[in-house]
Amino acid sequence: MTTLESSDSGRSAAKLKHAEYARLEAPLALEHGDELTDLVVCYETYGTLNEKRDNTVLICHALSGDSHVARHDEADDPGWWDLVVGPGKPIDTDACFVICPNSLGSCRGTTGPNALNPSTGHAYGQDFPTITVGDIVETQRRLLEHLGIDKLLAVVGASMGGQQALQWGVKHPDMAMGTIAIATAPRITSQALAFDVVGRNAILHDPNFHDGQYYDQETGPKAGLAIARMIGHVTYLSGEAMQEKFEADRFQPREVATTFEKTFSVGSYLGHQGDKFVERFDANSYLCLTKAMDLFDLGHSPDALAQVFSASTCRWLLLSFSSDWLFPPAQSQDMTRALIAGNRPVTYCNVSSNCGHDAFLLPEDFAVYGELIRGFMRNLIEPCVCAPGSCGRLRDPDDPPGEASIFSPDRLDYEHIVRLIPKDASVLDLGCGKGELLCRLRQRGNRDIMGVERNENALLSCVWDGQNVIHADLNEQLSQFADGQFDYVVLSRTLQAVKDIDTVLSEMLRIGRKGIVSFPNFAYYKLRDMLAKEGRAPESTGVLRHKWYNTPNLRFFSIADFAELCQERGIVIHEMLAMETETRRDVVEDPNLNADLAILVLSRQ
Amino acid sequence: MTTLESSDSGRSAAKLKHAEYARLEAPLALEHGDELTDLVVCYETYGTLNEKRDNTVLICHALSGDSHVARHDEADDPGWWDLVVGPGKPIDTDACFVICPNSLGSCRGTTGPNALNPSTGHAYGQDFPTITVGDIVETQRRLLEHLGIDKLLAVVGASMGGQQALQWGVKHPDMAMGTIAIATAPRITSQALAFDVVGRNAILHDPNFHDGQYYDQETGPKAGLAIARMIGHVTYLSGEAMQEKFEADRFQPREVATTFEKTFSVGSYLGHQGDKFVERFDANSYLCLTKAMDLFDLGHSPDALAQVFSASTCRWLLLSFSSDWLFPPAQSQDMTRALIAGNRPVTYCNVSSNCGHDAFLLPEDFAVYGELIRGFMRNLIEPCVCAPGSCGRLRDPDDPPGEASIFSPDRLDYEHIVRLIPKDASVLDLGCGKGELLCRLRQRGNRDIMGVERNENALLSCVWDGQNVIHADLNEQLSQFADGQFDYVVLSRTLQAVKDIDTVLSEMLRIGRKGIVSFPNFAYYKLRDMLAKEGRAPESTGVLRHKWYNTPNLRFFSIADFAELCQERGIVIHEMLAMETETRRDVVEDPNLNADLAILVLSRQ
Repeated sequence: MTTLESSDSGRSAAKLKHAEYARLEAPLALEHGDELTDLVVCYETYGTLNEKRDNTVLICHALSGDSHVARHDEADDPGWWDLVVGPGKPIDTDACFVICPNSLGSCRGTTGPNALNPSTGHAYGQDFPTITVGDIVETQRRLLEHLGIDKLLAVVGASMGGQQALQWGVKHPDMAMGTIAIATAPRITSQALAFDVVGRNAILHDPNFHDGQYYDQETGPKAGLAIARMIGHVTYLSGEAMQEKFEADRFQPREVATTFEKTFSVGSYLGHQGDKFVERFDANSYLCLTKAMDLFDLGHSPDALAQVFSASTCRWLLLSFSSDWLFPPAQSQDMTRALIAGNRPVTYCNVSSNCGHDAFLLPEDFAVYGELIRGFMRNLIEPCVCAPGSCGRLRDPDDPPGEASIFSPDRLDYEHIVRLIPKDASVLDLGCGKGELLCRLRQRGNRDIMGVERNENALLSCVWDGQNVIHADLNEQLSQFADGQFDYVVLSRTLQAVKDIDTVLSEMLRIGRKGIVSFPNFAYYKLRDMLAKEGRAPESTGVLRHKWYNTPNLRFFSIADFAELCQERGIVIHEMLAMETETRRDVVEDPNLNADLAILVLSRQ
Repeated sequence: MTTLESSDSGRSAAKLKHAEYARLEAPLALEHGDELTDLVVCYETYGTLNEKRDNTVLICHALSGDSHVARHDEADDPGWWDLVVGPGKPIDTDACFVICPNSLGSCRGTTGPNALNPSTGHAYGQDFPTITVGDIVETQRRLLEHLGIDKLLAVVGASMGGQQALQWGVKHPDMAMGTIAIATAPRITSQALAFDVVGRNAILHDPNFHDGQYYDQETGPKAGLAIARMIGHVTYLSGEAMQEKFEADRFQPREVATTFEKTFSVGSYLGHQGDKFVERFDANSYLCLTKAMDLFDLGHSPDALAQVFSASTCRWLLLSFSSDWLFPPAQSQDMTRALIAGNRPVTYCNVSSNCGHDAFLLPEDFAVYGELIRGFMRNLIEPCVCAPGSCGRLRDPDDPPGEASIFSPDRLDYEHIVRLIPKDASVLDLGCGKGELLCRLRQRGNRDIMGVERNENALLSCVWDGQNVIHADLNEQLSQFADGQFDYVVLSRTLQAVKDIDTVLSEMLRIGRKGIVSFPNFAYYKLRDMLAKEGRAPESTGVLRHKWYNTPNLRFFSIADFAELCQERGIVIHEMLAMETETRRDVVEDPNLNADLAILVLSRQ
């Protein structure tokens, strides 16, 4: 028997014992035309609003979540994001005032289809109007107004909560300093939409649905809702994760009481998940909220997205998970591209994960996504001011100190590169590593600077230092940058490790009005001698100190070779510096013979 | 109103006008313990059984297919695999006698749950016993026996039909000369299983299911079956394919009459598919056949699979599709590994495709999968006997003649390599290209030979020539070969294009008792001069004739470098040949200076 509970009373009061309720005064005009006159919002808060009233973090929950994002004390029930929210956690309730409201249309305290319809005296059911993510966000905005908060430190959300965070970032650009949108999309994929449709069809065709007025019936559309939930569950997990969970004991179903098929272990799990969900969630809310997700549409084409995101003024952190097939990484990359196109400050990471869409709720990849959130939040609270050499506090474990590496701290070329770039120039550093060059540029006064890096841990160091950095592979993913977007694009000791020289070089000079490359000179006299006299693959104690079979370098060329390529490709060399890294001295005479490192300033003719 | 149709009468007689029916005499004992006493098989045939009665091709259909695999004449309805089966098609009915039976448990003519249960006089419904893929195959075997056919040229199937082909190959190893198993798996993934479970739950919880005895009811479990089909449909398509189909007109549903949600274009499509399916398929058959798919289990661990496949004696062609997430390529790779472990003749290709699981039914990737089937079938009918130089009839379009390429026809080293390998040795050629070396070895008398190649078109040439070749990347996928599996493993002009030299070298000498490498010598005197005197990245008219920025070669080393690495790694050099390719002469004196190509025979100490 499904009981009708008014949103006023708060459903599952025992679980939501810390929930507060706000009755919003004026009617809410909805995007699709209706209005809601009686609107109650259930929410929970954590931490303390500071005197300047500028430390509020709004957390938006996903489809089936609620206001209980974290435990309020040791004795409290766990929240759905205890990993991330709490004292000393990435979203630190010692420093921030966290608000998590239950979503409009949900059944966990805020007005939704199970609330009383003032015009009928019955529950709304299917008479609850169509709502959008915009309406959900507007309800949150009205709650903040009600609480006297007119500025947010950050809006944070994942999945459907991520859609809300996106909506905040683009529709209320002055409200938050930062937006964190995780495992989300400007509009969901056709595949994800299809699964939502099938789930809704299962509910709508359940004979116990009674056109949504099942609240006073013997039973509600339990089977339909459970089936919708089962479909959802499969999409929240990656194939690998399911394999790990259910492969070994495939034919040994777990001991659960369920009316659903139990032949296989995965079946007993899904049946159990379906049954559990029906106990705590309302089918009309499921219909209402999945529809809101499906209707959410910030645009499809790159141009439309660029237009929408151009309005934003906050700092952005976008995260995706490599194995998330419900909100695939490409969608976060589309948004990253749109933000880049508008010169917005954005950091993006595709967190390597086996956990699928649910990764943001799980501890497995927390060391990366948790620290990215922590680093980003820390820089919102207090921007990083780092002294020379102090950057990269989070060390890349793949790159231990003293090891041969092209990302070595001994980078003579950085000083020269900083000097070659004007103080007011915008700069993109391709293959930025831990952001050492970016840091030097920032210290020197450059403001509009950004990095591209494919190593997750190096990227983490950049975020920790408050740099904007994009997780991407230089060989494939530079098209997201616009023509002439930066004054300078830098490839410092990176070009020789790239396979497709022509493309990367041409991308560099498309994106930057000028390019700066530094690379090891293969015609350095010691290397020549080694091949000529000893008949051995050249190797030095300097920048070419690797063995032929394990060097990160894939291309070997001299200053003369590079100069010839520039000439053939119509690339102008404006300036060249050459040096011998072993002796740390500049080389003027015959650099192609005497230098082991060259730095060139280039542009298109 | 769902009507009961006896399997005898043949459902949808209008569509299956060419179907024939065989009543099998003795009862069929089923794997799960029951038996079927009254068993009718519906089948269609194409082409003519030859006098030797050895040209029969058995085609096994997928879940919802039937006996009508292809049209019988111009006026006939299209079959589900008209692309592949017919006169002059890859499965050529001018040469082969094709039989396609409807599956046991289906509702398209062969006995299934909608047939009369002789012990009750009613339809079986849920009293139809649990059947397995093994039972389906046994029914097919009995049909062939009934028709007097005791030898097959090939068994071919995809998806659930692929499971049947696998079952044939491992359980009746003497029956067929060749097995083609497409987009299938030794057991389905937990994810695919989960979707099947949810679909079955939708049927089982439909109140019109009536425990399976809905045949004489007003209506059957139409909503449940339609929902199961909708889930299936989403899994048959790739995410990219759905994006292409439904992205542009997302909010413009198509004009279809359906009781299902029509808000979105993808919803109208799924609703339509669901409705159509209900008209032609029986819910009990859907339950019965998906359960058979889910129970199919040739083993999970590599050892178990190797054991199962070791029984097979036929030639194998395994195909997967890169975007198939329902039967992911890794599963075909697992089977390939098992066949390799047992030294079975196998060719595997992961066809690059955007079409998902359904790719095998679609024209998009037919140029590859169709030609692979054609090439494999041609070699079953008549093994390729090719003259020297005539190999590779299907040219790789990426590799036009005369272009600089490491797969150039001018391959001096082949003659030497063939001479270095004994006539009775087994050989694995890593990076075999179009199979030229394999072809020379076969002409010379070597029998147990195999190639590994990552280029799809080059691989096609190998299949066309009747070689066994595995589609794999040398940098990652050599673990599928067993220790000491081949007498000789060859890396001809390939090592220098590989990034991880150490791993590939060590894999070569793990898999082969001996290894043969040929590579360009970077210390060839002309190259030394170029760097030493001109200060330029070396380049020659011979094997190192590429520019530094676009060479396929990633590693540059001399004979001396390689010899040193061998010493450091405990690799013995048994023999070395050196040559100057420009002058086509062997080099004896100071090869590290005078040769531009070296061939070495290696082994572990």
